[in-house]
Amino acid sequence: MAAIPAAPIPTLPPAAAPGDALEQVDTPSLVLDLDAFEANLRLMQAWADRHGVALRPHAKAHKCPEIARRQLALGARGICCQKVSEALPFVAAGITDVHISNQVVGPAKLALLAQLARAARLSVCVDDPANLAAISAAMAQAGAQVEVLVEVDVGQGRCGVADTAAVLALARQARDLPGVAFAGLQAYHGSVQHVRDRAGRAAVAARAAAAAAGYADSLRAAGIACDRITGAGTGSAEFDAPSGVYTELQAGSYAFMDGDYGANEWSGPLAFRHSLFLLTTVMSVPAAGRAIVDAGLKSTTVECGPPQVAGRAGLHYAAANDEHGVLKLAPDAAVRLGETLLLVPSHVDPTFNLHDSLVAYRDGVVEDVWAIAARGLSR
Amino acid sequence: MAAIPAAPIPTLPPAAAPGDALEQVDTPSLVLDLDAFEANLRLMQAWADRHGVALRPHAKAHKCPEIARRQLALGARGICCQKVSEALPFVAAGITDVHISNQVVGPAKLALLAQLARAARLSVCVDDPANLAAISAAMAQAGAQVEVLVEVDVGQGRCGVADTAAVLALARQARDLPGVAFAGLQAYHGSVQHVRDRAGRAAVAARAAAAAAGYADSLRAAGIACDRITGAGTGSAEFDAPSGVYTELQAGSYAFMDGDYGANEWSGPLAFRHSLFLLTTVMSVPAAGRAIVDAGLKSTTVECGPPQVAGRAGLHYAAANDEHGVLKLAPDAAVRLGETLLLVPSHVDPTFNLHDSLVAYRDGVVEDVWAIAARGLSR
Repeated sequence: MAAIPAAPIPTLPPAAAPGDALEQVDTPSLVLDLDAFEANLRLMQAWADRHGVALRPHAKAHKCPEIARRQLALGARGICCQKVSEALPFVAAGITDVHISNQVVGPAKLALLAQLARAARLSVCVDDPANLAAISAAMAQAGAQVEVLVEVDVGQGRCGVADTAAVLALARQARDLPGVAFAGLQAYHGSVQHVRDRAGRAAVAARAAAAAAGYADSLRAAGIACDRITGAGTGSAEFDAPSGVYTELQAGSYAFMDGDYGANEWSGPLAFRHSLFLLTTVMSVPAAGRAIVDAGLKSTTVECGPPQVAGRAGLHYAAANDEHGVLKLAPDAAVRLGETLLLVPSHVDPTFNLHDSLVAYRDGVVEDVWAIAARGLSR
Repeated sequence: MAAIPAAPIPTLPPAAAPGDALEQVDTPSLVLDLDAFEANLRLMQAWADRHGVALRPHAKAHKCPEIARRQLALGARGICCQKVSEALPFVAAGITDVHISNQVVGPAKLALLAQLARAARLSVCVDDPANLAAISAAMAQAGAQVEVLVEVDVGQGRCGVADTAAVLALARQARDLPGVAFAGLQAYHGSVQHVRDRAGRAAVAARAAAAAAGYADSLRAAGIACDRITGAGTGSAEFDAPSGVYTELQAGSYAFMDGDYGANEWSGPLAFRHSLFLLTTVMSVPAAGRAIVDAGLKSTTVECGPPQVAGRAGLHYAAANDEHGVLKLAPDAAVRLGETLLLVPSHVDPTFNLHDSLVAYRDGVVEDVWAIAARGLSR
């Protein structure tokens, strides 16, 4: 082997700097069209305001404190996080009203929850009496307080209790235990978000809202206040906000859109725009009808289908390998080596989770690079 | 809103510490069974040694310098990386013989390649004359030198040239340009790795090896030395090592295995063991026949199918949501809230890319926590 040269080992520069043209951004990079993004933020906040419900956007979608700050500046009440660890960089960034929209189980996680509850206003979901008791014990030990929302299963078939007796029992248990305060219900229905036709989506959302209302009525009939009912996503917010049931919308993807949400029928008042793209470079044009880009499974995910090539006819992202994307070209389409393309990710949340930074641009010019500070925080 | 308490914001502790029991590791966490891992490393190195070929394991699989160090200690010649940025933490860890098994396109990436080539011995793939000229220019400008391997398409249908004239032209161009030296061929066939039946896999691997040999013979007939032919993966190394064609094996997944490789027929001499698992906690047991674990799409990927529950009959990972995994339970199976389970990821490479650390354990006790230092380095 030749002698190893002794030059210093380089460090990776940022993907972009303010003032760069979008085409100059190093790839693969997640990029955000600020005009579309800001329009989406305003549209959802106005919808919540019009119907008198709070908007508490889900930060699991983007994991980026700079984005949460902009949502709060427009009127959002706070944020949702899905894991305790995910909330840490948001609280560190000064965002101190966080709903953990999930069960938190096990001593390590409960200790962290209790520590964080001494630095921020937190709520958390419960669907099990032993877990609720453990939360109370951890809070009491730390001298902390957390609001608990009983998660009810309104059709998703995931977490949550699904009978009135269990809801009442958990609410009473929370009322009686130290360190916890019963605050209401979480009634999130995930699969309704992607019912494609608008009428069908409205119908499933209405059934979920009716189920949530039934549990809330049972609580009130038992003399237990139920002031908060949190739920809704990007696909159902149109129906959940005016339902009279939900007090809080948890939507997250609306700020960005993706291929999966783009496939929904959006004929109503909430027509969000694609603001999030994956910038990629054509790295090989080895044969007629085929080109290879530098973004594969480590830059975008495919569980909701492959990404789409934005604004270019005849280019089809046919296969994702680990670090390669294989484009099939229509006979009249062409790309050149080194050219950059914009892809529409098919699924916002896991795509953000692959990237450490987000390049924010307007009119083709980079304005800023934001840290995706909660990337990878899944504990 | 209640006043925000003023306690300090906690930081996330490491998932585990040496001496912890495996069940105590915070979840979701990627964990490595050291006995199985070390056996896999020894088996592949012995196979390469026996057939007189070099082992140059692919670091894109694990992105972890501690793992590469162990491979080199057993006799590996160097490592492969798929991106220039990915190589940085390995070179920083003292691993100075790196093959970039991919095209490197665009001025920012070539500038980084040239800088890194002054600190390490690098090779890189080419399949385009303009790109080769750009590599040469970047190297000459930086006073650096890189070996180039012409990538040939031996059946994968991705990057690489597929005719003898193009191979010869690129080799001659590399011979004549400054800053680059023609070193041989890359002939990697990705899809052969997952041909399930062993005989079929052997047949496809033989055709790929014959194609690579044909290009090498043409080079030699033209008076151009072709000393290095790099290729092979975990699924084809069994056939590629004794082929007499390849001088170097690029396999990566063999150290870990996964659901996809586990589905291959392994009746030959290379029977690798599952060493990589995703530790997850049961976070909700809301209904008969269903349990929810805390590892979803942000902790494991599903493009090769869902993960499998290891060592527990009757538990089926049925659906991955962003942060939830939905388990279906057979009638005689049961799990309890808070219990940890080991999942076998279906696809090693993108799974490692979701995690910042790897918990190494032996006989159920944590020995160390290793940084997955190249996680997310896809530029």
